[in-house]
Amino acid sequence: MIWYENNNNDIVVSTRIRLARNLEGVPFPNALRDTQQTTEKIRDAILKSNSTLGKDFEFINLDKLSDDQKHSLSEEHLISPQMLEGKGKSVLINKDKTMSIMLMEEDHIRLQIIKSGFAVDEAYETANRVDDVIEESVTYAFDEEFGYLTACPTNAGTGLRASVMLHLPALTMTDNIGRVITSATNIGIAVRGLYGEGTKAYGNLYQFSNQTTMGLSEQEILERLKKIVNQIIDMEKKARKNLLEQNNDSFTDKLFRSYGILKYAHSISSAEAKSLLSDVLLGQNLGILPKPGVLTPLECMVKTAPSFIGANLTTGERDKKRAEFIRKNI
Amino acid sequence: MIWYENNNNDIVVSTRIRLARNLEGVPFPNALRDTQQTTEKIRDAILKSNSTLGKDFEFINLDKLSDDQKHSLSEEHLISPQMLEGKGKSVLINKDKTMSIMLMEEDHIRLQIIKSGFAVDEAYETANRVDDVIEESVTYAFDEEFGYLTACPTNAGTGLRASVMLHLPALTMTDNIGRVITSATNIGIAVRGLYGEGTKAYGNLYQFSNQTTMGLSEQEILERLKKIVNQIIDMEKKARKNLLEQNNDSFTDKLFRSYGILKYAHSISSAEAKSLLSDVLLGQNLGILPKPGVLTPLECMVKTAPSFIGANLTTGERDKKRAEFIRKNI
Repeated sequence: MIWYENNNNDIVVSTRIRLARNLEGVPFPNALRDTQQTTEKIRDAILKSNSTLGKDFEFINLDKLSDDQKHSLSEEHLISPQMLEGKGKSVLINKDKTMSIMLMEEDHIRLQIIKSGFAVDEAYETANRVDDVIEESVTYAFDEEFGYLTACPTNAGTGLRASVMLHLPALTMTDNIGRVITSATNIGIAVRGLYGEGTKAYGNLYQFSNQTTMGLSEQEILERLKKIVNQIIDMEKKARKNLLEQNNDSFTDKLFRSYGILKYAHSISSAEAKSLLSDVLLGQNLGILPKPGVLTPLECMVKTAPSFIGANLTTGERDKKRAEFIRKNI
Repeated sequence: MIWYENNNNDIVVSTRIRLARNLEGVPFPNALRDTQQTTEKIRDAILKSNSTLGKDFEFINLDKLSDDQKHSLSEEHLISPQMLEGKGKSVLINKDKTMSIMLMEEDHIRLQIIKSGFAVDEAYETANRVDDVIEESVTYAFDEEFGYLTACPTNAGTGLRASVMLHLPALTMTDNIGRVITSATNIGIAVRGLYGEGTKAYGNLYQFSNQTTMGLSEQEILERLKKIVNQIIDMEKKARKNLLEQNNDSFTDKLFRSYGILKYAHSISSAEAKSLLSDVLLGQNLGILPKPGVLTPLECMVKTAPSFIGANLTTGERDKKRAEFIRKNI
């Protein structure tokens, strides 16, 4: 199940494990004139492997997709925003969209596992298995001292980026989110918005991930992240409890109003929709609002991004179509 | 049918005719030590008349009502706010609440006819018939030169106050209402909010009435008022047409959002409720929003005034009960 379809995850929306890998003896993508041979080698390593895991993937040449199709993959977190630019890039995606292997991003291989909910160990284990399948047919660029070699040194070593997406509406409403971000940053955890580096935390969705990939073992990286995430979960739970106990009337009213606006609005911007959908997700998690209709609030957020609604439309037209989509599906 | 139950009146909500009358040889109420004898004389003139009109009334001694009950009558426009204060006041109200005869307000008799919609001539004719019934048994204070004598000279002459309540949301939204009020005032038409003199025009409801009662015949007063009201109706219609043509998306969106908030809010102030209910009334009149549920928006406005919800509750408790009432009935 893709991460946004599950509405039962309270606070932790999804877990992502990303491994950066490169082939020995081949220049990094930014210095590689012809990417075709390397792409085919990695593609075959996966699709033609003896593992059942490999057979689950479909190969997609991004050069053959429209801009809207590429942006949609990005909104679903199946490719990174960097994959939207340039030529010669491709991705392998499995059937239930929980695994994607980007080829010729910054590195030759960016292997990514996305699990719904808080599943760091499970996701890492799956990533390892896919990594092993690929390594059966290719030789990775690896240095005894530095570990896995990557285009950008900040990814070298383990090549591991573990990230957890948290829905933190109560910490945001109570103005505690700044403090949380500062504490996390101070101990080497990066905090980003829904769409990665430099994006705003629309919908009160925050990604927490390890800043350093070197100097720690994979297990140490994962344990550190799990520890801070567990602390943040506790803080969010306390903030929700306080809102319910101390401002029940206005808090309940706010959640219901957001729901009412989404059920009836005839024009809505992407930013407002995300903010109101965040309230609805919170209200559903707390049992205050009715259960999801056709789609979960997260799915409505993803599926009403401009690329899904139609990037060729005017903003006004998109705002109308977005409102209509949400009215029908919420 | 009481004025607020009819949702089919586009722009003109209701028409009110008020006649001020006093008994000859009896001091005005403010100088009358014992009001009982005069009250009984007028009461009997109505209840014991041979007319079927008179038999339709019920006599209510306001001293026997609670503050909430009195305020409720005031919100329904069956008594004036002045009737809420002091002792020895009473009112006769007919079964369908279209006629009320206040006794010992500023004058001995304030006879009032309220019709739903734009019905100036019809309401005046009814007022005249009731006036005739009373005059069969009492002698009015009348001067050949000044006409009917009243406690305050501004009511003397015809004693007639004709007023029309208009719902002017489009003129308000387009910031033209100030101009309309100034023009009306300049030609001797007073403009007031929903609850008479000095009240704010909550819910975009404005009362237009003749300022002078002397120097013009009854027919001239009524014709002047009808003429200006017809002009304002045309302006409101044009403003609505413009909103539909020039800002259709945002206008439609605004009306639907107001409807959505009212259907889901769990706490709402009286002022916000009136404002949103005004949007809903407009949307229903224009055929944009679904038809009324249990109650019309006007009825929701009247029935969620503090006196109906419970004046003894805290503001927070009332806001919750008001939201609940509207959710169930809109």
